[in-house]
Amino acid sequence: MQTWKTKSRQTLLDRRPWLVVEDHSIELPNGKLITNWSWVITPDYVNVVAVTKEQDFLCFRQVKYAANGPTLAIPGGHIGANELPLEAAKRELLEETGYTASSWTHLGSFNIDGNRGVGVAHLFLAVDLDYVAQIESDDLEEQQLIKLTREEIQNALLQGEFKILAWTTAISLALLHVS
Amino acid sequence: MQTWKTKSRQTLLDRRPWLVVEDHSIELPNGKLITNWSWVITPDYVNVVAVTKEQDFLCFRQVKYAANGPTLAIPGGHIGANELPLEAAKRELLEETGYTASSWTHLGSFNIDGNRGVGVAHLFLAVDLDYVAQIESDDLEEQQLIKLTREEIQNALLQGEFKILAWTTAISLALLHVS
Repeated sequence: MQTWKTKSRQTLLDRRPWLVVEDHSIELPNGKLITNWSWVITPDYVNVVAVTKEQDFLCFRQVKYAANGPTLAIPGGHIGANELPLEAAKRELLEETGYTASSWTHLGSFNIDGNRGVGVAHLFLAVDLDYVAQIESDDLEEQQLIKLTREEIQNALLQGEFKILAWTTAISLALLHVS
Repeated sequence: MQTWKTKSRQTLLDRRPWLVVEDHSIELPNGKLITNWSWVITPDYVNVVAVTKEQDFLCFRQVKYAANGPTLAIPGGHIGANELPLEAAKRELLEETGYTASSWTHLGSFNIDGNRGVGVAHLFLAVDLDYVAQIESDDLEEQQLIKLTREEIQNALLQGEFKILAWTTAISLALLHVS
């Protein structure tokens, strides 16, 4: 099974660092050429499912521009320049919650849109947390840190209360991992 | 907790039906105005976790342009004009696999990017399948239908073999639902 080949690419819209849109010409495995394929570049990001020593899950109540009304959320954010995904995950957990973790599991890295790109989501599970610092988040969103038990987070998850796709993915994978 | 308000919007790039990029001016709850917020509109889509009467999960081996190498996949596709998400899910399952299902569960609908939009993924679980028709997919991708047992799909899932975010979300939620 052969992958598609990018034959040429051209920038259509440049709003770095948040968004670049390119036009790709692509050769399919059967030799057919597709032109005018829109390709979207947005920053890769991390999300962290963080579980305290008391087996509580660190979550937020938050608003996000794309979501309809408040949502439950988990820590995360964009990966910085020259930063590895795990480093970004550790930084975001500390900035957003004040916790560090002594044990990290990579839950997976996933293409956000199979056709258009839209970056990669790197998902992590962090356990055995220590509270070491005050919260120093520079996020634009209002957010309120809350702790949910395993039963509470699973119920909220299955009710769709984590409204952003990657958050639901990370929590689902974490629950399957620890079960 | 107040949501952000869109004060004005302007089209930056129009490549309908696949992609529109807008520029938004947004008012935050504290009254602060953000200008030049990029907003990405792509088609909403469905994905279906389909389980046969023999408890096999219908999957594909497939290539996707965004993925690095072949990937495991599940049925799905864009929602048509004037089509409801569940109707699209039923259509895609039939077109891509030849199966219909007598029992459908809505696993959730999620914003694909909390900041930029990028559409909504509607995820479904379909069980009690009947094979009724030949496959009639018009997808560009080569794909090969395979059946995985519950143990096989969970192992593949946790190994990251479903490389696209929404597929992993749908399967994880389905496994939590049926467990």
